[in-house]
Amino acid sequence: MSVSAHSLFKCIDIFMKYEHIQQEAYEANMQLPKLNLVLFTFGNVSAVDRSLGVFAIKPSGVPYEALTPAKMVIVDFDGNVVEGSLRPSSDTKTHAVLYKHWDSIGGIVHTHSTYATAWAQSQRDIPIYGTTHADYNTVNIPCAPPMSDEMIKGDYEYETGFQIMNCFKNKGLDYKEVEMVLVGNHAPFTWGKNADKAVHNSAVLECVAQMAFLTQQINPSAPRLKDALIKKHYERKHGPDSYYGQ
Amino acid sequence: MSVSAHSLFKCIDIFMKYEHIQQEAYEANMQLPKLNLVLFTFGNVSAVDRSLGVFAIKPSGVPYEALTPAKMVIVDFDGNVVEGSLRPSSDTKTHAVLYKHWDSIGGIVHTHSTYATAWAQSQRDIPIYGTTHADYNTVNIPCAPPMSDEMIKGDYEYETGFQIMNCFKNKGLDYKEVEMVLVGNHAPFTWGKNADKAVHNSAVLECVAQMAFLTQQINPSAPRLKDALIKKHYERKHGPDSYYGQ
Amino acid sequence: MSVSAHSLFKCIDIFMKYEHIQQEAYEANMQLPKLNLVLFTFGNVSAVDRSLGVFAIKPSGVPYEALTPAKMVIVDFDGNVVEGSLRPSSDTKTHAVLYKHWDSIGGIVHTHSTYATAWAQSQRDIPIYGTTHADYNTVNIPCAPPMSDEMIKGDYEYETGFQIMNCFKNKGLDYKEVEMVLVGNHAPFTWGKNADKAVHNSAVLECVAQMAFLTQQINPSAPRLKDALIKKHYERKHGPDSYYGQ
Amino acid sequence: MSVSAHSLFKCIDIFMKYEHIQQEAYEANMQLPKLNLVLFTFGNVSAVDRSLGVFAIKPSGVPYEALTPAKMVIVDFDGNVVEGSLRPSSDTKTHAVLYKHWDSIGGIVHTHSTYATAWAQSQRDIPIYGTTHADYNTVNIPCAPPMSDEMIKGDYEYETGFQIMNCFKNKGLDYKEVEMVLVGNHAPFTWGKNADKAVHNSAVLECVAQMAFLTQQINPSAPRLKDALIKKHYERKHGPDSYYGQ
Repeated sequence: MSVSAHSLFKCIDIFMKYEHIQQEAYEANMQLPKLNLVLFTFGNVSAVDRSLGVFAIKPSGVPYEALTPAKMVIVDFDGNVVEGSLRPSSDTKTHAVLYKHWDSIGGIVHTHSTYATAWAQSQRDIPIYGTTHADYNTVNIPCAPPMSDEMIKGDYEYETGFQIMNCFKNKGLDYKEVEMVLVGNHAPFTWGKNADKAVHNSAVLECVAQMAFLTQQINPSAPRLKDALIKKHYERKHGPDSYYGQ
Repeated sequence: MSVSAHSLFKCIDIFMKYEHIQQEAYEANMQLPKLNLVLFTFGNVSAVDRSLGVFAIKPSGVPYEALTPAKMVIVDFDGNVVEGSLRPSSDTKTHAVLYKHWDSIGGIVHTHSTYATAWAQSQRDIPIYGTTHADYNTVNIPCAPPMSDEMIKGDYEYETGFQIMNCFKNKGLDYKEVEMVLVGNHAPFTWGKNADKAVHNSAVLECVAQMAFLTQQINPSAPRLKDALIKKHYERKHGPDSYYGQ
Repeated sequence: MSVSAHSLFKCIDIFMKYEHIQQEAYEANMQLPKLNLVLFTFGNVSAVDRSLGVFAIKPSGVPYEALTPAKMVIVDFDGNVVEGSLRPSSDTKTHAVLYKHWDSIGGIVHTHSTYATAWAQSQRDIPIYGTTHADYNTVNIPCAPPMSDEMIKGDYEYETGFQIMNCFKNKGLDYKEVEMVLVGNHAPFTWGKNADKAVHNSAVLECVAQMAFLTQQINPSAPRLKDALIKKHYERKHGPDSYYGQ
Repeated sequence: MSVSAHSLFKCIDIFMKYEHIQQEAYEANMQLPKLNLVLFTFGNVSAVDRSLGVFAIKPSGVPYEALTPAKMVIVDFDGNVVEGSLRPSSDTKTHAVLYKHWDSIGGIVHTHSTYATAWAQSQRDIPIYGTTHADYNTVNIPCAPPMSDEMIKGDYEYETGFQIMNCFKNKGLDYKEVEMVLVGNHAPFTWGKNADKAVHNSAVLECVAQMAFLTQQINPSAPRLKDALIKKHYERKHGPDSYYGQ
């Protein structure tokens, strides 16, 4: 049982190489149950290293309490496993497509959070009713239409990524401004400059989805938020003159 | 106060004989309050040993915090208590009937979880609206009609088992594929290859029931999930080409 | 600073005399926040000693985390404070009236629990839709009509007790069988053979109220539970042939 | 690195001068997540010292778990930072305007709590349906109309304060009696004689908002609470003849 110094160092090297995104993906995944965004394993987070051209993602079907940073699977932008002994999330190819085509995303989250999923099942955009929504988006939260049978029967998870991108193209949306989407009949995806921000966006989406549901119940003819308020609140938090936070 | 070695060994033997299903049933029962599926004692789980022809089930009306593995009652498939000093769950005969006639079930759960019970009270099947549902079932979650007065006045809990089986027969469903049912006016039953999987299914049912309620509120004309998605999601998790999990 | 042995013993005697109901009322009150039945101090529990003709009740407006058994106030059936330096709950006279006229009640609870209070504000009886309800009541949970201006402007809390009793009289209900009521525009009261059972009934009422709300939303024409099931479930838990519990 | 005794004492002096309101604001802010009134940093509390003409307020965008009393920013009634190295809450000017013009307020809270915000988004006053509401207010909880574009494009947070005051003026309300408001399309503000009472009012508002939502769902024609009950319950807790609490 002898190991050459060379191969040992190489092994350590690989381990160290991905440790930062494994740690980032691990910590972000562990936030999902704490924020009540997942039941069992109904969710996954990934974190990217663009200089290496790979991302770390949750292994498929592994309970959160059994996760460790080292169990995060390393995958390239074509969905190939680069490192890791576990099978990656079944939604891995959707993450890969989004990282490949949307080049400033640092982290991606998929959940089946209750209210956001109900809107996705309803095949409805979430209307912009208030400033909580406008603090994050200037438009309704888009719901991509259900996919065609061809896409579903083809490379399904890969096509899910394209369905999201097509939805943004058709609606004229910019993924750098709108960091969340509902996939019709399925559930939400969110992203952000890193995995932690992407999880933050998932929690905000669930909150906004619940408020919009209640608003429609209380006042079915509640109007869209007025343009001046949309602009004001978005710019308080984003853009050159933002003054929220430190 | 002398005890023959023979009778002592026999006693230990009986104790050891059922310990594995008592432990399994105990652990599964203790999951119910953790998953917010029960108020007080409104639920019960059983675990079967088919080689011995018996199952272990929660004693009736005993609070979860007072349960121990040894308190689980051992019952045969005709509902007779085989071992145990406590009275078994009042729903024991329903469990017995299902174990007797559906021979690949390993565990059964009954709860009065809030949203699933509301659908049962509404006497409505839970429509298949999204992929969360399709990950587990390719059909609406069936609601068995309320029982006839004759069945209710007869051996009620025993007949409840037959009501569930008749519902599956009439709807052409296979209990190995659809592992959950609502009993009209009453509440849900779920099952699985073991007690832990049966509890998992109870939590999934409650989640799907809540999402379907919200979906109907948001969009009363929300359509049924398209066939291609139902097939795709179910086969991701089940069947020969499944690729979810490890 | 000398104290005669006689007066010291008398003082201890008084303290000991009520300790058992103070302890019972204390423990029952502390269950309210644990069962999510109260916000701040919106609730109170009392426990009676009929041989002494008094009950122990929560002091008014004292946060649950500051309660101790000794702070429970001792009151007679006319609402007079017998022992204790704190002011009793503002609802004390309602408790007193019910203890005085309904002579087998051992404990009373008043909360503003969310769903039960919403039904009270809606001035609607809670319809009997399922077996969860029938395990406790064979009838709709009654909602007493709002009180007359005369009763409100008079001895309000005292009259609230009569409003509850009149509601039972007018509907032909027996307080020994139906242990819960909604006071229209106000909130629920429940009772039982002791304070612990009364709290149990408050939690069951809140659960049944939520399920009935959801049932109406899912199916506005959901029918009343059939008579055979009402009878069966109630008798499983109550009466000479009950077989629920140990 | 020498420091004169004089400047050191002066520095300690400033530190000590505001410590009491920093402590009060800190403790009140930390109640918001405990009472489930905020997601992330969607809320802020301030506490005033009227003799000094300043208030202490949460710094903008700082997570609750990272707060300390010393991080509370000291601001005057024109919204100028008097002491503190962090940027104050983006809603600071709204607090400043209310402290300046409503001179008996001791603490102010702003949250985006779920049900209250849904009513604000619905642009609806919360109807007075029951005694839980009447224990705190004799009127519907007012919803200020959405602000004009001019106000929004001007000094937005400053104008929000005036929008609240104008709403009270137009409806003939007294801020000393009604200690809560919804800002249309935005979210609630509450106040009280100190920061702790203001937080208490935010939690009561959220509770009343949820009950009113449910009441409307159960009975869309539920009537307004009758005048005699409004008067009775409000006076039980407030005014010269109140008898609630110690």
